Amino acid sequence: MIRIALDAMGGDNAPRVEVEGAVQALRELPPAFRIQLVGRTADIEAALKAQGAASGGRDVDRSRLEIVEAPEVVGMGEKPLAAVKGKPRSSVAVGLGLQKKGESDAFISAGNTGAVMAAATLLLRLHEGVQRAAIGALFPTAVHPVLVLDGGATVDCDARELVGFAHLGSVYVRDVLDRTQPGVGLLNVGEEDEKGNAVVKEAHQLLTQTPGITYVGNVEGRDILAGQCKKGRIDVVVCDGFVGNVVLKFYESAGRMFMGMMKQAFPDVLGRPEAKQLFKFLDYSEYGGAPLLGVKGVVIICHGASPARAIVSAVRVAAQMVESHLDQDIGAEFAGGSAAR
Amino acid sequence: MIRIALDAMGGDNAPRVEVEGAVQALRELPPAFRIQLVGRTADIEAALKAQGAASGGRDVDRSRLEIVEAPEVVGMGEKPLAAVKGKPRSSVAVGLGLQKKGESDAFISAGNTGAVMAAATLLLRLHEGVQRAAIGALFPTAVHPVLVLDGGATVDCDARELVGFAHLGSVYVRDVLDRTQPGVGLLNVGEEDEKGNAVVKEAHQLLTQTPGITYVGNVEGRDILAGQCKKGRIDVVVCDGFVGNVVLKFYESAGRMFMGMMKQAFPDVLGRPEAKQLFKFLDYSEYGGAPLLGVKGVVIICHGASPARAIVSAVRVAAQMVESHLDQDIGAEFAGGSAAR
Repeated sequence: MIRIALDAMGGDNAPRVEVEGAVQALRELPPAFRIQLVGRTADIEAALKAQGAASGGRDVDRSRLEIVEAPEVVGMGEKPLAAVKGKPRSSVAVGLGLQKKGESDAFISAGNTGAVMAAATLLLRLHEGVQRAAIGALFPTAVHPVLVLDGGATVDCDARELVGFAHLGSVYVRDVLDRTQPGVGLLNVGEEDEKGNAVVKEAHQLLTQTPGITYVGNVEGRDILAGQCKKGRIDVVVCDGFVGNVVLKFYESAGRMFMGMMKQAFPDVLGRPEAKQLFKFLDYSEYGGAPLLGVKGVVIICHGASPARAIVSAVRVAAQMVESHLDQDIGAEFAGGSAAR
Repeated sequence: MIRIALDAMGGDNAPRVEVEGAVQALRELPPAFRIQLVGRTADIEAALKAQGAASGGRDVDRSRLEIVEAPEVVGMGEKPLAAVKGKPRSSVAVGLGLQKKGESDAFISAGNTGAVMAAATLLLRLHEGVQRAAIGALFPTAVHPVLVLDGGATVDCDARELVGFAHLGSVYVRDVLDRTQPGVGLLNVGEEDEKGNAVVKEAHQLLTQTPGITYVGNVEGRDILAGQCKKGRIDVVVCDGFVGNVVLKFYESAGRMFMGMMKQAFPDVLGRPEAKQLFKFLDYSEYGGAPLLGVKGVVIICHGASPARAIVSAVRVAAQMVESHLDQDIGAEFAGGSAAR
């Protein structure tokens, strides 16, 4: 049995969207999966009732859906650390607490990102050898999705931390995307050895000497979507959380802008299946949140504005993370593996 | 008379593309404009001859086209500073030298970016009060173009330097894009005061207290293309050259990727005028290079792969920069203006 805890109070439209996502996900996932909706029981029950009515009275399989009471809610505007410490009975703290106690296998939240990161680091702690957690943002490209990390967990990184991200990303891509020997690029302003700021230059030197990482060298902004550079295929792009966050948000908005322009220019093609496919590709809300890598356990952070289909995707990714034993593999990479050397 | 010097040996397809661009630009520009083609006279003459033949023998107006001999060429792979010091007779050094001597009003190059920056800083020097030069990259958006700087001249910036970029960008947008009170955003990972790395946090504090700048606050990656944030319209986005370079190159590649996907999905609409317009928008090679701001003079840096139409755009932008007295206005902003306080 695999149990996935879902912060029912997290997103902008909680708990409606979370409940809708949970119900849909259970229909898709094999019978061995359970979902734990964490939050205010009364609110969740009401949303479940509304959801049942909305889906024409189709019954929700309650045997696979557990409600875990958490009376407190962390608001989107609250300061992360204060919220985590001041609200031990919040849906975030209770949901992560389940995993800590061994009563859950994963935690998903569309709530206050900073609070989820802080709570996850405090409650689950980092794997031994991991210096900093990183948000892994999967960038859709025309060739293959590329994992960019850090997407915003750590805005100031030193070179060793960037090397740690290379390990975290490599394990994720091997386990969850099922690719062997993932190519890792270091995001930089040019491919030459001497390019970059001081931290990136040092990280480049370290990465060329790091065993266990298929390092393809410095990569530029344009190489991310190409999925390759001169030295090979790019599966993972490593950068600090400042750059990663900026590029991630920029990409989301570029997709939206392109969609808008296309809709205006070619209103007659919008009904075609190709248009639907293209829009699905460009619409970041289709993608299901980003894993917080480095903490002991499985944690996925979703956009506050996530629609139900994004929650479903996040549940699916969480399931893959659990089934592929990502958590154990990250532990092994840093404990006995090359990352610890 | 306005004289624009063009590095004829700079780009990947030099001097053919440069000569083609120069000839086209002269046809578009008013009679008062002259172009100085800087490079190996024999190569330029040969390209002019080929160009004349290619355009069906249409005569090039040689009275408005001067060739300035520069026997040395800086290669794309050369180390900037070494190239500048070791090749005083390169097209880059000679072209910038014309401006220094008062014999030219602007310099455009599609050559080695680092060498052009180094040579411009060494030969023309920075305006008094300017700490660092910045590349201003104009991002096309669905609303209005947004100037992002620095696009890669200075990869490590301190907070004061970022404030300097806010001034440089404001003057450029006022003069060349003809907008009054341009809104300046500071690129960050969130809009709240406490967001960002140490340098950006300090820059945010400084910018809120800077007179003469219409500061709209921290902006996120998604706000660039929106051209606005909660606090108002965004005309200028300030960031260090590392982040700016990554986002700029990423944007170019996203436009290319999106074009490719559209071509594949809707081959039947490609002949429509709307498609041509959209592709023109998305194709960064349509845009004419980026100004190097902060040096005394007018310098525009183009992509190595620039086609002739990008050279034409660059000449057009250089003409606007000269005609709007951008150089003098930057001098005034930093000398007597608020930037110097």
